[in-house]
Amino acid sequence: MDEKKRPVILITNDDGAFSMGIKTLMNVASKFGDVVVFAPDKVQSGTSNAISTKTPILSSKLYSQDGVTVYSSSGTPTDCVKLAFYSLFRDVKPDLLLSGINHGSNTSVNTIYSGTMGAALEGCINHVPSIAFSLCDYSWNADFSHTIPFIEKIIDFVLRDSLSFGTCLNVNFPKGEVKGIKVCRQANAYWDEEFDPRKGKYGFNEYWLVGKFVNREPLSRDTDMWAIHNGYASVVPIKIDMSDMDSIKYLKTKIE
Amino acid sequence: MDEKKRPVILITNDDGAFSMGIKTLMNVASKFGDVVVFAPDKVQSGTSNAISTKTPILSSKLYSQDGVTVYSSSGTPTDCVKLAFYSLFRDVKPDLLLSGINHGSNTSVNTIYSGTMGAALEGCINHVPSIAFSLCDYSWNADFSHTIPFIEKIIDFVLRDSLSFGTCLNVNFPKGEVKGIKVCRQANAYWDEEFDPRKGKYGFNEYWLVGKFVNREPLSRDTDMWAIHNGYASVVPIKIDMSDMDSIKYLKTKIE
Repeated sequence: MDEKKRPVILITNDDGAFSMGIKTLMNVASKFGDVVVFAPDKVQSGTSNAISTKTPILSSKLYSQDGVTVYSSSGTPTDCVKLAFYSLFRDVKPDLLLSGINHGSNTSVNTIYSGTMGAALEGCINHVPSIAFSLCDYSWNADFSHTIPFIEKIIDFVLRDSLSFGTCLNVNFPKGEVKGIKVCRQANAYWDEEFDPRKGKYGFNEYWLVGKFVNREPLSRDTDMWAIHNGYASVVPIKIDMSDMDSIKYLKTKIE
Repeated sequence: MDEKKRPVILITNDDGAFSMGIKTLMNVASKFGDVVVFAPDKVQSGTSNAISTKTPILSSKLYSQDGVTVYSSSGTPTDCVKLAFYSLFRDVKPDLLLSGINHGSNTSVNTIYSGTMGAALEGCINHVPSIAFSLCDYSWNADFSHTIPFIEKIIDFVLRDSLSFGTCLNVNFPKGEVKGIKVCRQANAYWDEEFDPRKGKYGFNEYWLVGKFVNREPLSRDTDMWAIHNGYASVVPIKIDMSDMDSIKYLKTKIE
């Protein structure tokens, strides 16, 4: 590949700039292009598409090593993408945005809570082909090695073929061996019994978010949850436009 | 209406339990049912669907007045809905969830950044008909009075007819006179030039999120931005399932 044409790849995540997952992604991405990392300076799990409207965002360059420059910021993953675009890519956007690899699942409805996905959606809004990667293992020292060939395949495809404007990819990997890739839709699921109530130090009731994940359609073979439970990597194309086009016509007759 | 059958309406927002917008919504909703408020104890603008994964959530009952009980919590709007469901509606969910009235626009791509919408999406995930209301006026003392007849019309429709599972409503009102309601899709837009860089007290570069909102399709009459700019209230049905069904078949041929 001509060195001048090496793609520029922006990487971020929601587990912070020092996580094992982002390091794996940096190593894989470096085979495909010039990598810049712009990631949160702390864990930002569950921050969705949140943006910092009440506090300033601080950022600093952490280091450059093996051709990769790493920046961190005090903001959310979405803030990181916005600030990277503003400070580093004002004139020319990167060719690809990768988010992750998240330590933990982001299948199904977790798409909307996930900071990893938040970053990918922000790339997508700005017309940068964007992919979120997650491994269904929450350990800080999770083994990501089995995901690498599949990540390479997906990056290679997106760099060659791109993605439709307004669509990004949500990729999840099972913890163990990966049988292959399934392109699917997000399963219909929710969290139940969601809190652990405790009496806090000063006598206040404290509620810690916990919960049981309930898949409303465990038998649907076209969903990400089915793929993961059956040993496949799930790839769900995700749209930034959340309009329910099917409902518009009916609602027009009722409330206009 | 039979008192025993009065619907139960849960109200939340992202501007906090003491905002003018939520008070307007409480007054309107009280005409239709028994109202419970469970709202953030501070401004939570731009928190999207964020959840508190690293800190406990504290909550307290603030007051009961005119049949309305008001709770607040230290969490995000999504946390508030989850905690209300857990602590008050464990067995029977409310008949309706209302979020807002937000002080400021939540049209177009702001759907994904908005804490107001985050709360409505959380209700929707839990199969509670949910509506987010926003006024395109950021003032703390904005005048909401002109929105009331339209809010009544929409609440009345949803209580009678309900909404499809997995779909909630994103309603925005223009600042001045409202000509009527337009049911539409979200416009394709983004934020540009997003930061105000300042030198902070200790010499660090601070980046404040600001930006210019850019509508990529100002002439599209079927969008929420067009409706608002032309004096109409916009109603966009929003889906929690973000899967891009149109892309699945093609991607299957490429990366499975």
